[in-house]
Amino acid sequence: MKNKIPVTVVGANGYSGEELVRLLLGHPGAELAGVTSRQHAGKKLGQVFPRFSGVPGAEVRFLEPTIDGLLATGAECFFLALPHGVAAEFALPLVAAGKRVVDISADFRLNDAAVYKEFYSSEHPAPDLLAEAVYGLPEAYREKIRGAKLLAAPGCYPTSILLPLLPLLRAGLLQADTIAVSSASGTSGAGRKADESLLFAECSGSLRAYGIPKHRHLSEIEQELSHAAGREVLITFVPHLAPMTRGIHTTIFAMPRAGATGEQMLQALLQAYEGEPFVRVLDGLPDTKCVVGTNFCDIGLRVDGRTGRLILLSAEDNLIKGAGGQGIQCFNLMFGLTETEGLL
Amino acid sequence: MKNKIPVTVVGANGYSGEELVRLLLGHPGAELAGVTSRQHAGKKLGQVFPRFSGVPGAEVRFLEPTIDGLLATGAECFFLALPHGVAAEFALPLVAAGKRVVDISADFRLNDAAVYKEFYSSEHPAPDLLAEAVYGLPEAYREKIRGAKLLAAPGCYPTSILLPLLPLLRAGLLQADTIAVSSASGTSGAGRKADESLLFAECSGSLRAYGIPKHRHLSEIEQELSHAAGREVLITFVPHLAPMTRGIHTTIFAMPRAGATGEQMLQALLQAYEGEPFVRVLDGLPDTKCVVGTNFCDIGLRVDGRTGRLILLSAEDNLIKGAGGQGIQCFNLMFGLTETEGLL
Amino acid sequence: MKNKIPVTVVGANGYSGEELVRLLLGHPGAELAGVTSRQHAGKKLGQVFPRFSGVPGAEVRFLEPTIDGLLATGAECFFLALPHGVAAEFALPLVAAGKRVVDISADFRLNDAAVYKEFYSSEHPAPDLLAEAVYGLPEAYREKIRGAKLLAAPGCYPTSILLPLLPLLRAGLLQADTIAVSSASGTSGAGRKADESLLFAECSGSLRAYGIPKHRHLSEIEQELSHAAGREVLITFVPHLAPMTRGIHTTIFAMPRAGATGEQMLQALLQAYEGEPFVRVLDGLPDTKCVVGTNFCDIGLRVDGRTGRLILLSAEDNLIKGAGGQGIQCFNLMFGLTETEGLL
Amino acid sequence: MKNKIPVTVVGANGYSGEELVRLLLGHPGAELAGVTSRQHAGKKLGQVFPRFSGVPGAEVRFLEPTIDGLLATGAECFFLALPHGVAAEFALPLVAAGKRVVDISADFRLNDAAVYKEFYSSEHPAPDLLAEAVYGLPEAYREKIRGAKLLAAPGCYPTSILLPLLPLLRAGLLQADTIAVSSASGTSGAGRKADESLLFAECSGSLRAYGIPKHRHLSEIEQELSHAAGREVLITFVPHLAPMTRGIHTTIFAMPRAGATGEQMLQALLQAYEGEPFVRVLDGLPDTKCVVGTNFCDIGLRVDGRTGRLILLSAEDNLIKGAGGQGIQCFNLMFGLTETEGLL
Repeated sequence: MKNKIPVTVVGANGYSGEELVRLLLGHPGAELAGVTSRQHAGKKLGQVFPRFSGVPGAEVRFLEPTIDGLLATGAECFFLALPHGVAAEFALPLVAAGKRVVDISADFRLNDAAVYKEFYSSEHPAPDLLAEAVYGLPEAYREKIRGAKLLAAPGCYPTSILLPLLPLLRAGLLQADTIAVSSASGTSGAGRKADESLLFAECSGSLRAYGIPKHRHLSEIEQELSHAAGREVLITFVPHLAPMTRGIHTTIFAMPRAGATGEQMLQALLQAYEGEPFVRVLDGLPDTKCVVGTNFCDIGLRVDGRTGRLILLSAEDNLIKGAGGQGIQCFNLMFGLTETEGLL
Repeated sequence: MKNKIPVTVVGANGYSGEELVRLLLGHPGAELAGVTSRQHAGKKLGQVFPRFSGVPGAEVRFLEPTIDGLLATGAECFFLALPHGVAAEFALPLVAAGKRVVDISADFRLNDAAVYKEFYSSEHPAPDLLAEAVYGLPEAYREKIRGAKLLAAPGCYPTSILLPLLPLLRAGLLQADTIAVSSASGTSGAGRKADESLLFAECSGSLRAYGIPKHRHLSEIEQELSHAAGREVLITFVPHLAPMTRGIHTTIFAMPRAGATGEQMLQALLQAYEGEPFVRVLDGLPDTKCVVGTNFCDIGLRVDGRTGRLILLSAEDNLIKGAGGQGIQCFNLMFGLTETEGLL
Repeated sequence: MKNKIPVTVVGANGYSGEELVRLLLGHPGAELAGVTSRQHAGKKLGQVFPRFSGVPGAEVRFLEPTIDGLLATGAECFFLALPHGVAAEFALPLVAAGKRVVDISADFRLNDAAVYKEFYSSEHPAPDLLAEAVYGLPEAYREKIRGAKLLAAPGCYPTSILLPLLPLLRAGLLQADTIAVSSASGTSGAGRKADESLLFAECSGSLRAYGIPKHRHLSEIEQELSHAAGREVLITFVPHLAPMTRGIHTTIFAMPRAGATGEQMLQALLQAYEGEPFVRVLDGLPDTKCVVGTNFCDIGLRVDGRTGRLILLSAEDNLIKGAGGQGIQCFNLMFGLTETEGLL
Repeated sequence: MKNKIPVTVVGANGYSGEELVRLLLGHPGAELAGVTSRQHAGKKLGQVFPRFSGVPGAEVRFLEPTIDGLLATGAECFFLALPHGVAAEFALPLVAAGKRVVDISADFRLNDAAVYKEFYSSEHPAPDLLAEAVYGLPEAYREKIRGAKLLAAPGCYPTSILLPLLPLLRAGLLQADTIAVSSASGTSGAGRKADESLLFAECSGSLRAYGIPKHRHLSEIEQELSHAAGREVLITFVPHLAPMTRGIHTTIFAMPRAGATGEQMLQALLQAYEGEPFVRVLDGLPDTKCVVGTNFCDIGLRVDGRTGRLILLSAEDNLIKGAGGQGIQCFNLMFGLTETEGLL
């Protein structure tokens, strides 16, 4: 039997952390060396999350998140599932100690500390590391990810928006200033927070927009769209909360460049994602229930012949392809494993 | 005690019809004279819908829907909650017999039989009545509604899209060709149909677009937007099915006319709906759970300062303000009752 | 127009209070004179609950809950939707001031302060008032309710358990020591509490028992069952949380007394509830969706011929017949209004 | 790499069949050789279930279910996910051809064809095979399962009821004639049927009992309880439909034998399930959301000290431990694989 890579999840208490743990427990090439949680330090994983009780590999206890304690777990790779701002405090010493870090938070997604400050309302806690971090979207940066020490897994909304748009912007097929995006997320995207607005009785039967017009995720979305377009791209983005636990559905409106045909746009997507293990360009329309529990992002495309407008649609699991699943896909690349290991 | 107006609901078996019956049973100025259903003819209302058992006024039995039988109920007003195409077959003889008709179907919403054919794929069954029918959006056509013999209650999506847009188009504040709309509806909007795609296990956890790019409701939406703008308006419209039973949430993107400010747009909405009993222009953002069970349509507005784009949002109950509730609001106007009777 | 009775809701912030307010706003014989909430004092009702914005009668602002302030609202009846223990602090001075009080909390449901202490783990805050309080189950205590100054509206689970069982125990048809009850409630029953276990992501897809084996509601259930049986009755009760916002479904197992037939038991129920406006004895089986939004309690009955065991089933809306709706039914009796006013 | 065992799923169109396919696609020791569906014959798996598109091993096309076609798939084991009555038609020739069969239907669960006829209202289609079939509950029949040619996977409700009760009946700790069971299932348990009563709008917010007092599953439940008790056991069983897609929660009431203590009952469960990979005896209370997506059955126990009654609770995923997951657990035993393979 091959050796398993020891990994530790820092901040395993939230929905992203819990799902990361679930995926890692089933990963044939990884071994869960440790999990941390201030709140639950000392308890067994299965006490806090009864779902894991009795699952092989889940015998670990929660640790206090100290750097020495983390290093003592013997992990070669650390997954950070922490709030933004906090993740950087752990990334710095872990990277300095020669460890690989897969950060699920927003701390290292942006190239520019000034943009971070604009969108996150505080100074970036480790600006010197920004240049070293790699944006963990394998479909865009696979080769850089293989050599990454510090990996910044993309946000949930950004993944669902970038995957449909990047190939079309790269090919110059869209009028970039006409892009408007409406997304809807399950409530796990808001985190495990004791907040009245997230109670079952408040979310069931409720569909509502929030965080408009300047959601934080716009910063990384526009950064990556701009890289693809070769010039600055600004978009309008309206996120919604939908009455479901998991899944993101995204609907994008954009005007094609003059002369660009639906067939050209479809071919651009098909070519970009041919051979990609986790992106499916559908004949039909994406549905969150077909991707929840998987690392897939599904994409659909229609042209409104009456107005000439392009309609792009996508669906993903916000906690997998939109968080830890994508982090594991990158981990696999970083450690020379099969890219799909533990994810199919 | 004042006299109650006898009314009959034709096609009381679907979700719109059932909700109409519920509202009419609670209406102090109306009396349920009859209900029809081919499937349930002979059964008592409360046998088919146990919710109504024991409710005063609900002792009626389902009738076969024949014209003679309908007239024999003694109703002065007939609510048609039938599939499109079928409604017209009943409207014709009932109007000819001097009765008032409130049609919840799509048969009389369009001015032009050719547009009907384009969107509904069949000849209009009663084109001569189109000129007589009044589009039942009280906020736009209150005076005409008062005198209507044949009232065409607007569709659910159209109501949620027209109410936010009409005042802005009338005031010339928008670039009409930039309008793109994303709506999400609860599953009751698809009707009580034994269809695998509408099973609980298929809809729970599922968010998906459907019917794009040319949903039938576009015909009446564009007709009314064009009236308001004074020229032909074409829009892009993407409806979605959301995992909830009732409610529609609509998100509209549009570029303002050069120079138009957010304040001007807000004022246009506030002025248009000042004193309107069922439209609320919010400081906050609409939420379906705040309108479900009511006849309100809530509207919110934000300008994305970075792109200059307007974001309009609305929420309504698809079965009330989007169907029978609006029909009753019109009925109240047609019979000289207080407009809000039975609805607040 | 007849005079409306001014009423004030103390503690209008929770789910029971909010629903009470909704019902009272639609009550033709009551006028909302005031609402209180420490948290929201000074805000308008419609700011806190956007659902009420623009509803006639909802222009009131939240008050601090002081006795002087309450009396200054001019209300003749005070509805207390407060936590147990707190309600008594308000009931005492209000009753002393000659006002009628309808208490939705648990403070005055028990005859015996010692039982209160056993189940609620603290001394009863106003034991002298216990003798004066009337248990607000109209189907059992209608005449006493008419004269009540202090009305204790029954709990949600108790209502769903007592209504099916009382007539059978009164008639001596059951072996009382064989009663076992399994109930499931929507999450609003747990209150509007910022508690992780009540988040949408924790409750969706979750069915779980809680609070066993000695739920607080057992105290009033057994008190009333014992009154009906004429001797002490102890039962087993297992409440569950179900993934829905509203509604309680109760399933009761019991062995009939030797010789008692299913027909006798059915007749006992039919006779007990003949003419009752809000209890329906069904041929079929109760379903929460048929009672949610109503003040009905539906009851079904089956005998398992193989074991001889009786199966009793009931369904109600926990926030209406199980809380404020029943309170209003009692209010109507206390003030000489039609018992169903504002509830049908 | 070790050889994978080729398997074919007959009737892969329902919820149980779809979930079986999902589990088998992820099973390291099995290879999907074929899937059948009359309705979808000729289509690729991923066309019918977009969730499987692009998943390795999912390239197969649906076949017509003919015996020759089945044998031509080269499978060594056939999973039958067919309606009762139909499964036997396939089991007979497949067993005759020397193939192993794992039947998820009810056709071979009963020892006695007369009981089958009583509960399923038709003659048993292959009574001679009943003696050969093994009831696939590994916790009760592990050794017999290893040698089974024809495996009858238990029903969903039976699994959730038998696992808590069997050890207590075997140890003689219960008064068997006092057992009463209330279970609630997600709607996938009713199958993928275009039935109005299963629509999202009918099930959301709905909790309701059905199929009482003589649900078909009683036949196998009582057969196995009787085996454990050493004498005939009859119970009362009330199944409910709950507003969730997956999961079963079961609550059992029973009186202990005179003198039996809670501690004895707990120890009987702990000993019975020590070392069992898929049964967890909890300190806390079972919750469907902790078992959905897994092959675990969780069990909790409480004694109501006031009445002396035992409360047993369990939770499982109706489509995994209650159907195909348990079938795969048996398949692993039948083919000498690790029992947990493909299930953890």
